[in-house]
Amino acid sequence: MSIKVIIAGFKGKMGATALDMVKGDKDLELAALLDPFAEEEELDGVPVFKDKEQLVGFAADVWVDFTMPKVAYDNTHFALENGFAPVVGTTGFTEKQIEDLIALSQQKALGGLIAPNFAIGAILLMEFAAKASKYFPDLEIIELHHDKKKDAPSGTALKTAELIRDVRQFKKQGAEDEAESLAGARGAEFDGFRIHSVRLPGLVAHQEVIFGAQGEGLTIRHDSYDRISFMSGVNIGIKEVVKRHQLVYGLEHLL
Amino acid sequence: MSIKVIIAGFKGKMGATALDMVKGDKDLELAALLDPFAEEEELDGVPVFKDKEQLVGFAADVWVDFTMPKVAYDNTHFALENGFAPVVGTTGFTEKQIEDLIALSQQKALGGLIAPNFAIGAILLMEFAAKASKYFPDLEIIELHHDKKKDAPSGTALKTAELIRDVRQFKKQGAEDEAESLAGARGAEFDGFRIHSVRLPGLVAHQEVIFGAQGEGLTIRHDSYDRISFMSGVNIGIKEVVKRHQLVYGLEHLL
Amino acid sequence: MSIKVIIAGFKGKMGATALDMVKGDKDLELAALLDPFAEEEELDGVPVFKDKEQLVGFAADVWVDFTMPKVAYDNTHFALENGFAPVVGTTGFTEKQIEDLIALSQQKALGGLIAPNFAIGAILLMEFAAKASKYFPDLEIIELHHDKKKDAPSGTALKTAELIRDVRQFKKQGAEDEAESLAGARGAEFDGFRIHSVRLPGLVAHQEVIFGAQGEGLTIRHDSYDRISFMSGVNIGIKEVVKRHQLVYGLEHLL
Amino acid sequence: MSIKVIIAGFKGKMGATALDMVKGDKDLELAALLDPFAEEEELDGVPVFKDKEQLVGFAADVWVDFTMPKVAYDNTHFALENGFAPVVGTTGFTEKQIEDLIALSQQKALGGLIAPNFAIGAILLMEFAAKASKYFPDLEIIELHHDKKKDAPSGTALKTAELIRDVRQFKKQGAEDEAESLAGARGAEFDGFRIHSVRLPGLVAHQEVIFGAQGEGLTIRHDSYDRISFMSGVNIGIKEVVKRHQLVYGLEHLL
Repeated sequence: MSIKVIIAGFKGKMGATALDMVKGDKDLELAALLDPFAEEEELDGVPVFKDKEQLVGFAADVWVDFTMPKVAYDNTHFALENGFAPVVGTTGFTEKQIEDLIALSQQKALGGLIAPNFAIGAILLMEFAAKASKYFPDLEIIELHHDKKKDAPSGTALKTAELIRDVRQFKKQGAEDEAESLAGARGAEFDGFRIHSVRLPGLVAHQEVIFGAQGEGLTIRHDSYDRISFMSGVNIGIKEVVKRHQLVYGLEHLL
Repeated sequence: MSIKVIIAGFKGKMGATALDMVKGDKDLELAALLDPFAEEEELDGVPVFKDKEQLVGFAADVWVDFTMPKVAYDNTHFALENGFAPVVGTTGFTEKQIEDLIALSQQKALGGLIAPNFAIGAILLMEFAAKASKYFPDLEIIELHHDKKKDAPSGTALKTAELIRDVRQFKKQGAEDEAESLAGARGAEFDGFRIHSVRLPGLVAHQEVIFGAQGEGLTIRHDSYDRISFMSGVNIGIKEVVKRHQLVYGLEHLL
Repeated sequence: MSIKVIIAGFKGKMGATALDMVKGDKDLELAALLDPFAEEEELDGVPVFKDKEQLVGFAADVWVDFTMPKVAYDNTHFALENGFAPVVGTTGFTEKQIEDLIALSQQKALGGLIAPNFAIGAILLMEFAAKASKYFPDLEIIELHHDKKKDAPSGTALKTAELIRDVRQFKKQGAEDEAESLAGARGAEFDGFRIHSVRLPGLVAHQEVIFGAQGEGLTIRHDSYDRISFMSGVNIGIKEVVKRHQLVYGLEHLL
Repeated sequence: MSIKVIIAGFKGKMGATALDMVKGDKDLELAALLDPFAEEEELDGVPVFKDKEQLVGFAADVWVDFTMPKVAYDNTHFALENGFAPVVGTTGFTEKQIEDLIALSQQKALGGLIAPNFAIGAILLMEFAAKASKYFPDLEIIELHHDKKKDAPSGTALKTAELIRDVRQFKKQGAEDEAESLAGARGAEFDGFRIHSVRLPGLVAHQEVIFGAQGEGLTIRHDSYDRISFMSGVNIGIKEVVKRHQLVYGLEHLL
């Protein structure tokens, strides 16, 4: 039996990509679409709504939400109240709001997911890198992005570095008396290890974590080329939340 | 308090490398050395024995064994009987022998490790690759070795492929109508995915598993340059078995 | 003084991409556009024509051609006759036609370029790989493409292999007694070396040539993500042909 | 007919490695060995000398020199005077000394080579990187070495950067308003591009130059694992100098 899915925010880029993904998976069934900017009343036989209140009592299993920060909390609350397990990619939740939503999900015995990042590859990289750092405390991160990117290191690199710091035994790497003849050559220091940011045209979003030990090396690399890469994470989210009875924050908790 | 270590087979290459490792770690203390080919009676103040029976009643915590297949079972049995937690890199155990040794370890409430591969990086690669294959069923393995290697694919590649097969949802990869204009271009098929073996002078032992999905890729690579890389695995083995009460087969069970 | 450019076939994908490139380069000036499918008479102040005869006597320096195989020879001939140095990405020329066009270009003392591949990166990879193979006769090619690709090895890999064969001292690589436990593991054999074809979703078009020698390795890799990558080759073609007095076949002759 | 080779400094590490290389190449014949520290008078039937004056009038083609800076000039001068084409890996020549030796080689019509670096792979990388930078002005250098290395960037990286600077059209890379949240993340700036230095145990000496352009990327990587990698350069040097009539400085002039 297929899982019935509502998509909120289907007129936006992510919502539209999610729409294509759901339509392309025979285990999923598109039940309804919601967007205040929708002008149609139906799309390929699927009913389209402009106001979420029209969905009270509607028969569906999952509520996929790619809307706006200002409505994300209300939407997620509404989904839980109405028996739809939420899978939410919209950002802007406070910690308090997430706690409230988890409590509500427990009360309703409904699964749910709020995820700041749906790229499974990026999440696996972080998980693997953190685990490897327990055994290989010597590591460096190289992240590579297009040359319009303004911040360095990237948010993903910093998040990866923090996860590593939480489990790695502290070590200040490199030769004790190492010296840079050109400032910055050794990259940015973070908790005793180094992060390097490469910026070149043609690149999209890439990251590698290189571990070194006596006589061996281990490298984990993620390449992200397109927003469509988030969809496998949304797909897994949909299929997992229907088996759960509590909302989680972060896709890693469903992997 | 340091862990007291006996090394059996310290005259062999691996045993000698283990000897250096133990001497270099201040948390470990070399208690005794054993080798039928030894001619000295003492090495840097550490007693040297030629016959294991001389070690009955000796005060030590761990028995590191890099000897020969024909004595490995007897040695491990002896170690457990005498209260030394075994860390064994010698090969040639039958399944039945391993079962017996596990039973004996439980009876003695002693930890222990028999490991066909001590390279932590290789073990992490296998574990990560298997986990990633649950989410990314599209993958290929490329293993690269020196050009004197006779077998292809490598044993590690086959082991990795089996671990992936055990958890990956089966999928026959590639275009349905793909065709090779030169036979072998697409590599060896294994359970619907492909394995490629590169052989070049200068290389030692390397392996990468490449995963692909819509809009993203994930690559995990291990490079092995030197037998010294096995020593971090032996070191972890020594430090873990003293905390356990049962022998395990495979370093992955201690990570 | 800027170079005046005509674009033939500006309604096609490549022609349209070339149009954007010319408009974005202040050293180039768009002089005219030609396409039988054009409906407009002018585009941003640039005259648009449907028939090449309308361009007889027109003032321009370079004729960029991304049209159809069936008209490519006539177009290139026309360009040379009328004093426009041709830069042609259309395929389908016979060897005899190319000889004729070279002879005509010499007679007119006009530069020109017919190029089956405008990706400078791919051309540099081939050139570098061929040169390196003189010193490192041990090499393997790994090409990686999306999983809808039907042929293996790729055309670029075969072209690279041929260029290497032309200059490399023949050597049959690998251990003399090597054996495959899974057929195809060692890839396709070509002149004593091996080619491996990887096919995965998410990939576009990538190739690496790995050289190995005692104690060292050299790797050259090209990644192609988008057709826009051809435009730097077209740009160089335009700027080089105006300095030359003979048509060449292959962008490598202008690098 | 094989080339007769004298090795000066055969008791040192490089000289001994060269000795093995010459013995292993059937196109080369070991004619004599020289080292003030030699105690034998003969090695496998080859005469051993302690003083170069003993080699006046000796029949040989090439003088391989891996001695000491303080005798390198005298040795090379002696080789040329006595009709041996020198292949010199010893360092410490002044510019004036090199000029003198070139003049002497011309007078004697003898080939010769003084090379600060015999790793062909490293030299090819530099040559290829410089050529590619003409077409791809956007690039970054990542060099990776063992964690005992004190200086960053490496000498090879700086040499590569200088060669690139000499031919690349200047461009300041990266977003105009890019900012580092951790100092050093963007690496060291050199002529508008960036250099990153990675230091990890297990690594030896590696360098990659990454080029990026709209829709494509080109990467050139050299891995150096062992001093034996210098021997292919020495081998080429020996075989080339016998065909030449002038000494050159730098192996790149013989490739």
